[in-house]
Amino acid sequence: MVKEKLYIIKIGGNVIDDATALHTFLSDFAALQGKKILVHGGGKVATAIGEKLGIESKYVDGRRITDDETIDLVTMVYGGLVNKKIVGRLQSLNCNAIGVTGADAGLIPAVKRPFVKRAVVKIDYGWVGDLDEKKINTGAWQVMLDAGWRPVVAPLTYNNEGHILNTNADTIASVLAVALSDFYATSLVFCFEKDGVLEDVENVNSVIKEITPQRYRDLKDSGKLFSGIIPKIENALNALENGVKEVVIGNSAHLKELVAGNGGTRISK
Amino acid sequence: MVKEKLYIIKIGGNVIDDATALHTFLSDFAALQGKKILVHGGGKVATAIGEKLGIESKYVDGRRITDDETIDLVTMVYGGLVNKKIVGRLQSLNCNAIGVTGADAGLIPAVKRPFVKRAVVKIDYGWVGDLDEKKINTGAWQVMLDAGWRPVVAPLTYNNEGHILNTNADTIASVLAVALSDFYATSLVFCFEKDGVLEDVENVNSVIKEITPQRYRDLKDSGKLFSGIIPKIENALNALENGVKEVVIGNSAHLKELVAGNGGTRISK
Repeated sequence: MVKEKLYIIKIGGNVIDDATALHTFLSDFAALQGKKILVHGGGKVATAIGEKLGIESKYVDGRRITDDETIDLVTMVYGGLVNKKIVGRLQSLNCNAIGVTGADAGLIPAVKRPFVKRAVVKIDYGWVGDLDEKKINTGAWQVMLDAGWRPVVAPLTYNNEGHILNTNADTIASVLAVALSDFYATSLVFCFEKDGVLEDVENVNSVIKEITPQRYRDLKDSGKLFSGIIPKIENALNALENGVKEVVIGNSAHLKELVAGNGGTRISK
Repeated sequence: MVKEKLYIIKIGGNVIDDATALHTFLSDFAALQGKKILVHGGGKVATAIGEKLGIESKYVDGRRITDDETIDLVTMVYGGLVNKKIVGRLQSLNCNAIGVTGADAGLIPAVKRPFVKRAVVKIDYGWVGDLDEKKINTGAWQVMLDAGWRPVVAPLTYNNEGHILNTNADTIASVLAVALSDFYATSLVFCFEKDGVLEDVENVNSVIKEITPQRYRDLKDSGKLFSGIIPKIENALNALENGVKEVVIGNSAHLKELVAGNGGTRISK
């Protein structure tokens, strides 16, 4: 039996922070035919609101720590403000969006990240969620998709004590794509502000059309890749190994082209 | 055919602001058998966060005005912080909650309240939603209820331009109860911090067991009713006229008794 196509599309903070870019993207997302899920990141608005509220951003080893006040902040901003504004906008574009976090309908159970030992210190990342694709509540996702709804997912999950957990949006998108590949032919699209993966981070015209595992190793060795793209490519390769049909990385302004197979960087096995 | 029972239970800000009262209530809500919807109000946390953000509460004629920054504030706090914390808590109590606003899945379309003319001035209440029970997306509600999900509804709706609208939680609860009465035997339960409607607002032991339309008129004429209870009773009477099976007003600490028909004030035709 041929599986129905499912697009899982992730947008990051750069798109969310830019009203024009967001509007263009959402119009294209609304127009895209068939089953689809939008996963969104946070954007700078959480930091801006946090500053006004006197909530300091805390980092260890360059990674953000999600303490009690920070999880409340991102629950408000990602799960409320950003998510519901996107849902409202999509509704006005005749796209029947439903905004969710991983806690809603038990969609994405997670575990709080264990303390990480670095040399002699233990690092507590706080209320951060780690995912297991086998725990995804695929039945609940199918209910929503079969109802014709377009889930809009905030980067939040929950643990078995009911605590909300801050969770990387790229990871949510790829774990969802893997878990739902048993039921759908899943295409995973990572949208950001560049036209694709650049061979040379200094040159915007150096978009790589295709990345295989071998090509990735060579690129990584070259040292010219943008460091932020490395986890995206590794997520993508892992997703392909685990049943996802295709992964594309490209510009949020070109969603139509990306899903049509034109433009962006295609990751392949 | 006998319709399946559906509880629509509303809690207000007083319960949300009191961690112990909220915990008790949510444990009882989780334990309640059968189909159920929780509608929650806002609580003081929005005002507290608004003050920190420098967002002033604005009132005209004693009614709050929802301007641009206030709608963002309540979208964050009601739709994000309050809603998702309740959802997480219910999940930990084995209650498969899904947090929604009226915008999600097009559940509760609304219209922005038109300007109200008072004497020579027009009052603009801002981003406030007025409801029409005929517009409720009953199909989407049934999908959620049939999936075994327990919707947790923030007091937010949306208009056809996709703008989020601040909407009275009592009104949402009673309009939902009316709209879903075609499909379920709906019981509407308004929970607050008192044991029921008090015949004399000064006397906590003066709970009225039953209020009929005639009794309500007499009580209103007596001038002893708490003014905040009047719209609740009028909502209740209207709901009963429009297909809702029963309406009870009582203490959030006694949910078990209220749904069992013990305690609280029963409104009847």
